[in-house]
Amino acid sequence: IGHPLYRSSKFYTLYPPPGVVIGLAYNEYGGAILYIESARSSFGNEGKGGLRVTGSLGDVMKESSSIAQTYAKKFLATYINNNMPAQKYLESHDIHIHFPEGAIPKDGPSAGITITTSLLSLALGVPVPQDFAMTGEISLNGKVLAIGGVKEKTMSATREGIKKLIFPKANQKDVSELPDYIKDGIEFHFVDEYPEVFKILFPKVDTKVQDTEPNLELINQQITQ
Amino acid sequence: IGHPLYRSSKFYTLYPPPGVVIGLAYNEYGGAILYIESARSSFGNEGKGGLRVTGSLGDVMKESSSIAQTYAKKFLATYINNNMPAQKYLESHDIHIHFPEGAIPKDGPSAGITITTSLLSLALGVPVPQDFAMTGEISLNGKVLAIGGVKEKTMSATREGIKKLIFPKANQKDVSELPDYIKDGIEFHFVDEYPEVFKILFPKVDTKVQDTEPNLELINQQITQ
Amino acid sequence: IGHPLYRSSKFYTLYPPPGVVIGLAYNEYGGAILYIESARSSFGNEGKGGLRVTGSLGDVMKESSSIAQTYAKKFLATYINNNMPAQKYLESHDIHIHFPEGAIPKDGPSAGITITTSLLSLALGVPVPQDFAMTGEISLNGKVLAIGGVKEKTMSATREGIKKLIFPKANQKDVSELPDYIKDGIEFHFVDEYPEVFKILFPKVDTKVQDTEPNLELINQQITQ
Repeated sequence: IGHPLYRSSKFYTLYPPPGVVIGLAYNEYGGAILYIESARSSFGNEGKGGLRVTGSLGDVMKESSSIAQTYAKKFLATYINNNMPAQKYLESHDIHIHFPEGAIPKDGPSAGITITTSLLSLALGVPVPQDFAMTGEISLNGKVLAIGGVKEKTMSATREGIKKLIFPKANQKDVSELPDYIKDGIEFHFVDEYPEVFKILFPKVDTKVQDTEPNLELINQQITQ
Repeated sequence: IGHPLYRSSKFYTLYPPPGVVIGLAYNEYGGAILYIESARSSFGNEGKGGLRVTGSLGDVMKESSSIAQTYAKKFLATYINNNMPAQKYLESHDIHIHFPEGAIPKDGPSAGITITTSLLSLALGVPVPQDFAMTGEISLNGKVLAIGGVKEKTMSATREGIKKLIFPKANQKDVSELPDYIKDGIEFHFVDEYPEVFKILFPKVDTKVQDTEPNLELINQQITQ
Repeated sequence: IGHPLYRSSKFYTLYPPPGVVIGLAYNEYGGAILYIESARSSFGNEGKGGLRVTGSLGDVMKESSSIAQTYAKKFLATYINNNMPAQKYLESHDIHIHFPEGAIPKDGPSAGITITTSLLSLALGVPVPQDFAMTGEISLNGKVLAIGGVKEKTMSATREGIKKLIFPKANQKDVSELPDYIKDGIEFHFVDEYPEVFKILFPKVDTKVQDTEPNLELINQQITQ
C-alpha cells in the first residue's frame, strides 16, 4: 500500500451494493481501510467462471484473489441450498474484482477473507454490513491464517469509525497485547475457519454451515479406504 | 502525460461521432485536455465484449479502462430499457478505446468517468456535448473518487474555451479554494455517483436512473430468503 | 527511424501490388521515405480479422497499426457499398503489415494515415499511386493529427522524386514557413479527416464519402428515441 494513508477513505454509505467489503491494510506509513468491490463482468451472455482483478495489485494479492474465488465456489457448493441461484453464481458468471483506489499499489495475502466475503456477497445478492472491517489470509480450504500489522490496522479502523473487526484467531495474542487506548470500544471477532466469518456477517442467510468440528470417524474411514 | 502540453488540443468540432469525450489530465508541466475515443473493432462479425486499448497507456490507465468497461456494462443492464439495442451493445461488440495523441505517455485512474462516458455514448449512439470536460476515478460500482491536479485541470479547460466541468464531489473543497481568476466563468458540476454524470450529459436519454437510495425492503427480503 | 537515411529507398515501380504505400519518416539524421506493405496472412482458411505487424516497430507504431486497422474496418463498413467484397475484407481475413527494411527500428504515430491507406488498398484490390507520399497521425474516428519533421520529410520526398505529398491540415502553417527552395515543385495536399485522403488517392472508387457534416436530425431522433 502506497502513501499517503491518513485521510478518510470511506466512500460508501451504510447500504452499498452487494460485493462491497471493507478490508484492512498497512505499510511502513501506517494502516488504512481498503475497499474491495466485486461485480459481474458479463451481462446477458453467460460467463464461464472467469476472473479479472484490477487495482495495481502485486502478484501475491492477485493469487490471493484466485484462491478466494476457488474457495468461494467451494463454499457455495457446500453450504448453500441447491435450489438457490447463488449456488452456481460464480460458475456461470465472469467476475471482476477491483480494489479502489486504482493508483495505489497493493500487495500481500491478508485480504483473503475480505475478497472471499466480497464474492459471496455478490453471489448471494446480500450487502455486507459496513460497520465491519476484516483481515486474514485464507487457505484453499477456508482456514484463516495469521496476518501482520495488527496495531496499525486496528488504529485505522478506529480512525474511520469502524468498531467491529474480524481477525484471525492466530492473531488473538497480538490483539491482547495492544494498549487499552487502541482497542477500547472495539468489538473483536476471532475466527479460525471461513464459515465463522460468514455466520458473523450474514446471520440471516440460511446455510448448511453447522459445527466445524471434523468428523474423525469419517476421516479415518477415508484414510483406510 | 508527456510535454509539451501548452498547445491547443481541440481537434473535434461541436458534433463529433459518438464515443468522443474530453477528459482532463495534468503532470508536472501543467494541465491539458485529453480526448478519449471509443469504437467498435468488429464490424459484421459479432464480438464477444472484448476490449483493446491504445495511446501509450500505463498500467493504471489500462486497468481504469477495464473498470470503466465492467461498470458501463452494468450501467446499461441496470438503467437502459430492455428493448433498446444499446442495452447489450458492450456485450455483443468488441470495443477499441484510444487516447490520442498516440506518442504521449498517459497514466493514472482519473479518466474513469470519462472512459465510462465514452463507452456509453458509443453504445447509445448519442454524441457527448463537446462543451463539457470531466475528470474522476470510478469504482466498480460507479462511485466517483477524488483526483489530483484540480488547479491545472481547471486552467487547461479555460485555455481551451471549455466552460462546463464535471469533478468528483470529494474535490469540491479543492475547487472552492481556487482563486477567483481561475474559476470565474466556469460552471462546475460535482458528482458522487456515475448516474449523476449521465443525467448531466444525456438529459434526453430515457433511463431508469432515479433515486440512488437503496430499497431496504428488497434487501431485507433477500436476506431472509 | 535509424540511420543511414541518405540513400534511395524506392524499390517499387509505378505499379506495385495493392497494399504498398509510401510514408515519410524522420529522425535526428534527416528524413526518409518509408514503405508500408499489407498482405493477407491467411489463405484458404477464413481469418478472423486478426493483425500481425513486423519491421522492428516500437510500441507506439504497433499501436498505430492497431488504430489504423480499427478505423479501416469502420471506413469500409461506413463508406463502401454493401455488395462489394471489400466491405468485409478486413473482418474475414487475417492481415500482416510489414515495414521494410526490417532491421531499421521504427517508431511513432505519424504513419497512421499511411497504414490506413495500405489496408484499404489491400481490401479494395486497388494499387496506390506511387507518385504520392503521406504522413499523419490518425485517430480512431479518422481525424488526421499533426506530425513532426515537416522539413526533413519534405526534403526526403524531393530527393526521391516524389512530388505529391499529403500532410495534416494542422501542419499547414509549418509547410508555409518552409523556404521556397525546399517546397518548390511539390504539390501539397492538406487533410483534416481521413476520407479526404481516400478521395485524393482513389478518386475512381465508388464510395458513399460525402459531406462529413453530422445529420443533426438523426442525432435528435436517437436522443429522443
